[in-house]
Amino acid sequence: MYIAKIRKIKPLIHHITNYVTVNDCANATIALGASPIMADFDKEQKEFSKISNCLVLNTGTINERVAKAMYESVAYYEKLNKAIILDPVAMGVTCARNEINSKLLSNKISIIKANASEIASIIGLDGKAKGTDNTFIINDDFLQKAQEYTQNTDRILVVTGEIDFIISKDKIAKIYNGSIMATKITGAGCMCASVCGVFAGVIEDKFQASLYAMLSFNIACELAQINSKGTGSFRMNLLDELSNINDEDIKNKAKYELI
Amino acid sequence: MYIAKIRKIKPLIHHITNYVTVNDCANATIALGASPIMADFDKEQKEFSKISNCLVLNTGTINERVAKAMYESVAYYEKLNKAIILDPVAMGVTCARNEINSKLLSNKISIIKANASEIASIIGLDGKAKGTDNTFIINDDFLQKAQEYTQNTDRILVVTGEIDFIISKDKIAKIYNGSIMATKITGAGCMCASVCGVFAGVIEDKFQASLYAMLSFNIACELAQINSKGTGSFRMNLLDELSNINDEDIKNKAKYELI
Amino acid sequence: MYIAKIRKIKPLIHHITNYVTVNDCANATIALGASPIMADFDKEQKEFSKISNCLVLNTGTINERVAKAMYESVAYYEKLNKAIILDPVAMGVTCARNEINSKLLSNKISIIKANASEIASIIGLDGKAKGTDNTFIINDDFLQKAQEYTQNTDRILVVTGEIDFIISKDKIAKIYNGSIMATKITGAGCMCASVCGVFAGVIEDKFQASLYAMLSFNIACELAQINSKGTGSFRMNLLDELSNINDEDIKNKAKYELI
Repeated sequence: MYIAKIRKIKPLIHHITNYVTVNDCANATIALGASPIMADFDKEQKEFSKISNCLVLNTGTINERVAKAMYESVAYYEKLNKAIILDPVAMGVTCARNEINSKLLSNKISIIKANASEIASIIGLDGKAKGTDNTFIINDDFLQKAQEYTQNTDRILVVTGEIDFIISKDKIAKIYNGSIMATKITGAGCMCASVCGVFAGVIEDKFQASLYAMLSFNIACELAQINSKGTGSFRMNLLDELSNINDEDIKNKAKYELI
Repeated sequence: MYIAKIRKIKPLIHHITNYVTVNDCANATIALGASPIMADFDKEQKEFSKISNCLVLNTGTINERVAKAMYESVAYYEKLNKAIILDPVAMGVTCARNEINSKLLSNKISIIKANASEIASIIGLDGKAKGTDNTFIINDDFLQKAQEYTQNTDRILVVTGEIDFIISKDKIAKIYNGSIMATKITGAGCMCASVCGVFAGVIEDKFQASLYAMLSFNIACELAQINSKGTGSFRMNLLDELSNINDEDIKNKAKYELI
Repeated sequence: MYIAKIRKIKPLIHHITNYVTVNDCANATIALGASPIMADFDKEQKEFSKISNCLVLNTGTINERVAKAMYESVAYYEKLNKAIILDPVAMGVTCARNEINSKLLSNKISIIKANASEIASIIGLDGKAKGTDNTFIINDDFLQKAQEYTQNTDRILVVTGEIDFIISKDKIAKIYNGSIMATKITGAGCMCASVCGVFAGVIEDKFQASLYAMLSFNIACELAQINSKGTGSFRMNLLDELSNINDEDIKNKAKYELI
């Protein structure tokens, strides 16, 4: 029923994101039935915060100008009590990036979507990230520390990897859907954050929103893989599948457990 | 004969555009046989204005630095009496955007390509835009005001929507070609502005240029839709069709009337 | 054996590139088995230079902020003796671009990947470039001057065109593989520079790295053309082929001679 709701309400998803995968993020947002606005001009943040349903931040190609727009924006969204999704790309890799993400995290972020290395860096474990790729193995210690973090901050953590974890203060979901092909294109992680934004734009419960977002994205990846001949066609098929997916698909194909 | 002319002359189409759909705009430009240059560095505007056939401006992800380059550029193109196409994305939505677009519009813009909300904002009607999406219904009052605007400014208005309107001081064309799929990808509107630029680069009469540009784009959309399985394949097919389209296709498939 | 090595080592290829084709560059990098990081924030250059295998610079949409980051970055990579690949897009067309590229070239650039117009401008011939397109014919004088340049600078020149030339101080390779379709999309040249970076990230000998890079890219183009219906599907197929190509393909399909 959530996807039908998205397509009916058409939430406006405001992104301040990187210039590498911004087109994929916009197309994924539209494919699911929402409407994207990509606007990183600081002087426009107040007005866009008023008309948008939520804000998606991604530090993939961050710089001082864009960081400033993000700081402006989060303050407005916080004041309006609208959801903010943060994708702290390559958090833990450079000091400047850590500083910017830390400053963003001092605001009311609803959902953090990241790989295990980036989450490790946020929750105080050594993530040893290499560029934007994850090199961290999720273990019990990680999950415990992650859940403690959600208890202290009332945030949802969406940890992507071979298995995806959705972590709230009292629940953990393990998602088994997905495709290895998603790691062979740029932008899969960024699109996940957008999709979390799309669902968070219409679902009050952010754990539920994140869970359905990641199920939808991962099932679309599975379907996209079937007729892919390589990474180019996978990327195209993924948008096709996101544009065709419906609530029945989620109901029939979801593979996850609550632990 | 216009498309053949484009492919022979290969006009150079200078864009200062957004970073979301810039790749689509460049690829659409090349697909039709023209050559794109995307350059938004203020110090280069004079030199690019000399070698380019026309300028396409798009305020999709505008900021102060890029706005400054646009101001520089329009002054040079105006002096050289070369066509300027403006796509005032989300005009009417924020003050900063209105200010920048107004400043651009104080120059000699040849063609404004926009949705009805954005045009409404320019011609002094209340467009009530929501982000980049159009929410405005085109009625007789709109058309009359729009034509008055073209009479006062000697500009061509290209109003996109379910039906596209090309409006000059003494003519209005209604174009019935097109595909609903174009609203399901990001960048269709931006590509329209690029395509207007491509045709304006080789056709003196800007009403004729706009009409053929929109017919070409819309017919390519119709053809692209036929074998599309979703929005991803539609986007790919659209470039395929733009790269294959010829003057015969326009002659045979055009559905429009002059009113 | 080189492609297998790339897929095993997964070199990290740091790009500071343009916002038009950056997504294609990232996807081409991943398709071959390497890992891209696109980061143009000056404050992060030192840290990224430490973890990356090489640096790819592209001046396609250069501006002052990004140029500053490039200057920072080349200094660090030079100090660490890591390969730097420069794609001096539209060199020779504007003064600002010439200045920035000249400043970059005062550093230890390992490989220059450019069309003949751009190379002509670097080696002191009149390139007469038109935007980003090449208009220069490669003749004996050009080749002699180009090789003299490599002898004075110890750089590799990768000159793209209908036939590609790889020029070192004591060798010239002529590559006959390729597809005319590569000239019908934006980003083919930019992807070549990325692919040179990918191979330079695992091969010490930069002539060998450039030769294998261009053979791989051109053979992928040939294979991509087979089932393409236009420029959109060619672009998709190219990523498919880059993600599927292996050392056997290069061995069996390479058409080049050393002169």
